[in-house]
Amino acid sequence: MSDSIALLREKCPLVHCITNYVTVNDVANAILAIGGSPIMADDIAEAGDITAISNALVINIGTLNARTVESMIAAGKRANEKNIPVVLDPVGAGASSLRSETVDRLVKEVKFTIIRGNLSEVSYIAGLDAVTRGVDSGMAEGDADVVSVAKKVSSMTGAVAVITGRIDTIAYGSRLATVSSGTAAMSRITGTGCMLSGITGAFAGAYFDPFVAAVSAVASMGASGVRAYERTKEKGTGSFHIAIIDELSRMTDEILSAEGGIEYVS
Amino acid sequence: MSDSIALLREKCPLVHCITNYVTVNDVANAILAIGGSPIMADDIAEAGDITAISNALVINIGTLNARTVESMIAAGKRANEKNIPVVLDPVGAGASSLRSETVDRLVKEVKFTIIRGNLSEVSYIAGLDAVTRGVDSGMAEGDADVVSVAKKVSSMTGAVAVITGRIDTIAYGSRLATVSSGTAAMSRITGTGCMLSGITGAFAGAYFDPFVAAVSAVASMGASGVRAYERTKEKGTGSFHIAIIDELSRMTDEILSAEGGIEYVS
Amino acid sequence: MSDSIALLREKCPLVHCITNYVTVNDVANAILAIGGSPIMADDIAEAGDITAISNALVINIGTLNARTVESMIAAGKRANEKNIPVVLDPVGAGASSLRSETVDRLVKEVKFTIIRGNLSEVSYIAGLDAVTRGVDSGMAEGDADVVSVAKKVSSMTGAVAVITGRIDTIAYGSRLATVSSGTAAMSRITGTGCMLSGITGAFAGAYFDPFVAAVSAVASMGASGVRAYERTKEKGTGSFHIAIIDELSRMTDEILSAEGGIEYVS
Repeated sequence: MSDSIALLREKCPLVHCITNYVTVNDVANAILAIGGSPIMADDIAEAGDITAISNALVINIGTLNARTVESMIAAGKRANEKNIPVVLDPVGAGASSLRSETVDRLVKEVKFTIIRGNLSEVSYIAGLDAVTRGVDSGMAEGDADVVSVAKKVSSMTGAVAVITGRIDTIAYGSRLATVSSGTAAMSRITGTGCMLSGITGAFAGAYFDPFVAAVSAVASMGASGVRAYERTKEKGTGSFHIAIIDELSRMTDEILSAEGGIEYVS
Repeated sequence: MSDSIALLREKCPLVHCITNYVTVNDVANAILAIGGSPIMADDIAEAGDITAISNALVINIGTLNARTVESMIAAGKRANEKNIPVVLDPVGAGASSLRSETVDRLVKEVKFTIIRGNLSEVSYIAGLDAVTRGVDSGMAEGDADVVSVAKKVSSMTGAVAVITGRIDTIAYGSRLATVSSGTAAMSRITGTGCMLSGITGAFAGAYFDPFVAAVSAVASMGASGVRAYERTKEKGTGSFHIAIIDELSRMTDEILSAEGGIEYVS
Repeated sequence: MSDSIALLREKCPLVHCITNYVTVNDVANAILAIGGSPIMADDIAEAGDITAISNALVINIGTLNARTVESMIAAGKRANEKNIPVVLDPVGAGASSLRSETVDRLVKEVKFTIIRGNLSEVSYIAGLDAVTRGVDSGMAEGDADVVSVAKKVSSMTGAVAVITGRIDTIAYGSRLATVSSGTAAMSRITGTGCMLSGITGAFAGAYFDPFVAAVSAVASMGASGVRAYERTKEKGTGSFHIAIIDELSRMTDEILSAEGGIEYVS
């Protein structure tokens, strides 16, 4: 892992994203900044073909609609056929029947490599009662056992489960890591979760081990957030937003190691 | 009104936006910057459900299509049923039959709380002859009686009518205010109108009085624009764009009071 | 050409864009920065009407779908009827059957004024074997005769053919120019190609000579990219992105003449 950023940049994975139109520009720029190459395509007539030439697929349901849901399913199945890693960002799972049913269907029909969301979203997949209030609310329920939710979702789906919050939790079978970098300020801009899912696709497209890929992505985002916030906290959230992409583009394995806040628990 | 920003941040209203894909990221970041929480959802299968859990709905027709128009109608009706405030941004009303007919239908089928547009767009709703040349042109017809247009639209629809221009006009029944902050430079970037409509939803979702909500939103945007321009006029419009979001995130009731340029006329 | 920027700003052409949702905000802000006025509209019910009131049409297939392809065709035909210049950005042509077939159909049914893409995309139109790996990859095949590809596409379509890369090539019948400004760093952010196509529409909407319009647009983007990179290379790609729009907004005919890197070959 000491050379994860360098390897990603050497491989420059092509990352197919079917993602929401709110943060899609940031997702593309974040993938480029960390060293990948993004391609966005959401029509059913090409979704599978684009997946087939890519190194990873990222499905983000942030602004899903009847048309794009079918493309997500088709692309996901194609990725499974070709052994291409697939990342799911279940934005707002639990907030509407459409989102919940779509996540149910995605998890049933596609085998995901990594699933990343906040506690509320991942709890929905775990079958727990989740009241989602906004996609960025985090729902940091003090009494929830975050680790057990992550482990349950990993066990149910076979995916690496990533729950982001004050401390990020990454579970994969019996393997467990936490990431303590990041700052609460990241919830004051839109897109940090989506960008993280995007770069998770880039790491997953460059590595064989999805657990290491997920941990590296979370820590890269966390360290970039902290560094960006230090530079811009006097300026405001517009500058903070841009500085996160700056920091992703300047991320190195040295920074990741020193400031990523990674702890491998088991 | 001396504590309007503080109250908004305390309440953190969830603002459902069905808005155009050109400026949607700015709208989300502006809502977050001023202290609200945005959620974007435009599929008919969930639009009403998302509105029902929100504190305000913002409908912006900037990149409308046959699919999303139905979602706008459904979400607007649901908001009306639940007494959730609804903001309309009739982008480009009068520029095409589709836009004009959609605005006609929206105003007929949904009761709006606040309608915000430039003179051309709001004049269209007033039934006046409007030649819209581009969505950002403003159509500042020197001889138009802006106040009478605003009052007419407020009377016709029961909504607060906001016409933005060199001087912004806010009319609600017999109540009238003007806002003199803002700068012409704001028309050199896309999205200042959309961002304003977005934060208008945030204020409307936090207050009982839609007139005060509209005035506070317009003045917050105006003061942010002036402050951002002062900081970035030597740099260019890219930096200006980002600085507006910075300033929204740093807006306080003190700044609003000192620099908002609000005049309550009646 | 010594007053091309000044003239563009005087005329402020309205540029109708049917473009992808990844970079649409940048395209709008780039058009405003260079001095035009953007309008985005992609529904078949209004695409032709919006084109008819515009000074130029830009068609970018970056996130095409079955719905918007029909709008592109309709708008393109309307532009041809009204002698409004039309720019094509064939993003990812060759990367999927959908993209290839759409480009085939567009080139057959619409007469384009200017076609701008990377070597892989324009080679596809020329009928050459093109393996497109990602939309930003450039596919700089060292052994390809870029000039001959550009001339072939210009001859086949009657359009000005623009191939962007390390050296940009602009061919129009027997006329040929190259532009040596720009920097490889521009491929580390998304949208520089799309922004260029957008401002190409602005220049084409302001001038009678599409060759000069294309050359001016390419050189404006190239000079802006170099200036932006000089200002931000220590900061990162987020700042670089914003600085490009800054520099477009500060572009002058003096800068264009001194730093555009234009060479008229024939």
